[in-house]
Amino acid sequence: VITLTTDFGLSNWFVGTMKGVIAGIAPEAQVIDVCHEVPPGDIRAAAFVLAASLPFFPEGSIHVAVVDPGVGSARRPIAIRTNRAIYVGPDNGIFAAALKTESVAEIRELTNARYFLPTLSATFHGRDLFAPVAAHLSRGVPMSKLGPKKDDLVCLDWPETSLSEGRVEGQVIYIDRFGNAITNIPAATLSNLGKPAQELHVWKGKKRLCGIAPFYAAVPRGQTLAVCGSTGCLEVSVNGGDARKVLGLRIGSRITVVALNPEA
Amino acid sequence: VITLTTDFGLSNWFVGTMKGVIAGIAPEAQVIDVCHEVPPGDIRAAAFVLAASLPFFPEGSIHVAVVDPGVGSARRPIAIRTNRAIYVGPDNGIFAAALKTESVAEIRELTNARYFLPTLSATFHGRDLFAPVAAHLSRGVPMSKLGPKKDDLVCLDWPETSLSEGRVEGQVIYIDRFGNAITNIPAATLSNLGKPAQELHVWKGKKRLCGIAPFYAAVPRGQTLAVCGSTGCLEVSVNGGDARKVLGLRIGSRITVVALNPEA
Amino acid sequence: VITLTTDFGLSNWFVGTMKGVIAGIAPEAQVIDVCHEVPPGDIRAAAFVLAASLPFFPEGSIHVAVVDPGVGSARRPIAIRTNRAIYVGPDNGIFAAALKTESVAEIRELTNARYFLPTLSATFHGRDLFAPVAAHLSRGVPMSKLGPKKDDLVCLDWPETSLSEGRVEGQVIYIDRFGNAITNIPAATLSNLGKPAQELHVWKGKKRLCGIAPFYAAVPRGQTLAVCGSTGCLEVSVNGGDARKVLGLRIGSRITVVALNPEA
Repeated sequence: VITLTTDFGLSNWFVGTMKGVIAGIAPEAQVIDVCHEVPPGDIRAAAFVLAASLPFFPEGSIHVAVVDPGVGSARRPIAIRTNRAIYVGPDNGIFAAALKTESVAEIRELTNARYFLPTLSATFHGRDLFAPVAAHLSRGVPMSKLGPKKDDLVCLDWPETSLSEGRVEGQVIYIDRFGNAITNIPAATLSNLGKPAQELHVWKGKKRLCGIAPFYAAVPRGQTLAVCGSTGCLEVSVNGGDARKVLGLRIGSRITVVALNPEA
Repeated sequence: VITLTTDFGLSNWFVGTMKGVIAGIAPEAQVIDVCHEVPPGDIRAAAFVLAASLPFFPEGSIHVAVVDPGVGSARRPIAIRTNRAIYVGPDNGIFAAALKTESVAEIRELTNARYFLPTLSATFHGRDLFAPVAAHLSRGVPMSKLGPKKDDLVCLDWPETSLSEGRVEGQVIYIDRFGNAITNIPAATLSNLGKPAQELHVWKGKKRLCGIAPFYAAVPRGQTLAVCGSTGCLEVSVNGGDARKVLGLRIGSRITVVALNPEA
Repeated sequence: VITLTTDFGLSNWFVGTMKGVIAGIAPEAQVIDVCHEVPPGDIRAAAFVLAASLPFFPEGSIHVAVVDPGVGSARRPIAIRTNRAIYVGPDNGIFAAALKTESVAEIRELTNARYFLPTLSATFHGRDLFAPVAAHLSRGVPMSKLGPKKDDLVCLDWPETSLSEGRVEGQVIYIDRFGNAITNIPAATLSNLGKPAQELHVWKGKKRLCGIAPFYAAVPRGQTLAVCGSTGCLEVSVNGGDARKVLGLRIGSRITVVALNPEA
């Protein structure tokens, strides 16, 4: 399995062309689109998409990700092998979130042009470099042939959550098609607040939004709720509605979960 | 063949993740996207899409459809086996239109967690339940292992056409990307009007729109026409234009086909 | 490999249904989407997409393209065999640009209904005619069975570039998702100007836009540049920005590349 994640969109021929290149080198590879609508150039959004989806792919998959505003410049193309999979893309932090739960075995800078297309364009390394390298890897070309070893990766500025007594603070990191606002607060963190979920309260800045519900339809239509979403993170939603519009949530909006002190 | 129809859109990782789950369980399955841009939560639109497309898939296909506003609530996940195919999705009427021309052999409620992902989220049963069940079915797991038999299905409120002397009344049920307004009036019904197609007239409410043409380009550019479209239903179009914009057609707009009485 | 390029968009079931038809006839075929968001009815845009992408597909591929405003009328459905591939679609010029670099071996008009679906709709030949013909071709049906030989193809009105002393004139023919404006000026032409690329200047009408840079990130963020893009043609861009918005570029905008005369 080779997966593809890009910011190319589907209104052009870019993704299809990458698949044509792969089909020419590795006809037997199964290519799966993860997402091609990452906001253009948004490495952090891409990192989030990869972390949310890749754990559900089979072991041994090869994951190509191309959100690459530095294409053609000195940013280095890399391949990363972990205990679970191989990652192919630019060294710009795009894999940072996905790698958090895996152990990195080997990093290679992609310098061996033998595994690229014969002509390398200045603007489309997804087609000319990353797709052919992934296709060759799927056919059994060893990492060691791709280029020199590297010891480190470019870091990604990733928003952290903070946990203090009785509260967890985080922010919105993704808003999906339905208007659900996904935060960076892992649902598992909430157990540290020392209260059952139904006694927790979710705030946006200084405004209380809602409590935590087990699923969308657990509250009446049009009502705000927070759920432990499918990414494992807390998600602020409006049942049958659009939390972005109704609550004015945006990427970066501060969200706090508070365990109300019954003595207070 | 496993087909996927959802309202997830393509701007996120949801559909790709379902494919990752299927690839892990049934690597040899061929997965085909039918449509992922069903309007969010619109079960009737999904039912129409399924009825228009699934007859063109090979016998024995497994059709997964997830437009599921009740995810996580008491709505039941089901699998339906007919003489032609297997359907997997929520029991909310989504398959009603597709099943009209098939005979149902067996309905199972999906309760056996052995065929789900190990952890079932509250919000993404497409990934955690429907995709893995479909993958297991494609590998030969029998329906009987999935859960208890069911005898009935949730009904869908579906607009019917009415045929009275000299007229058929229906409504617009889908507007495609080109602005063609597809009605629920089966082209076959028109022969009941007792006139050849070229003598029939199409009205929107009290306004005559056009006659019936054999294909789009049979009328001059910019002119309104109705054709027997590829779904088998009557379709109101503007050749080279957008019937939605030009004629103000909407989902639910009333369309009448009348055989003008020559004596009148 | 069978590729699909259409103006159907992805918000409906049209493309999925074509794949269902192919899966029923040629289950072993690998179907790859090139692009389905060609602007509705824009044959020239489709021709450009095909020319930019198809050379990257393996030899022997079957390329189906359906941008077909004349569907159902007298326009002829055809298959074209070249030294590299087979092309299937309407005879409306859609393959003109892709065929420029190939030699045509055989053209057939598709008239043999034995290779169509049993019922041919008036509006969806992608599903009823082109998809099944491509699927049969992939299974080894010879071109000669599809219909009578044809000697000519409908031409396409394609904008040419003009090269005069010290200047190349062309126009914008595609604007991608990032707002990069792709022109019809082949990068190779620029060497005829007798100056190194870094001494060339790019004008929009009477306004100088920028010089030529080796890649996007070679200029500061927000600055205009021109690059030899991945299609082999000159592309006007804003690093990290949207050239369409910033520079007011449109399809058809006149672009000139000038070698400034140092004596002037």
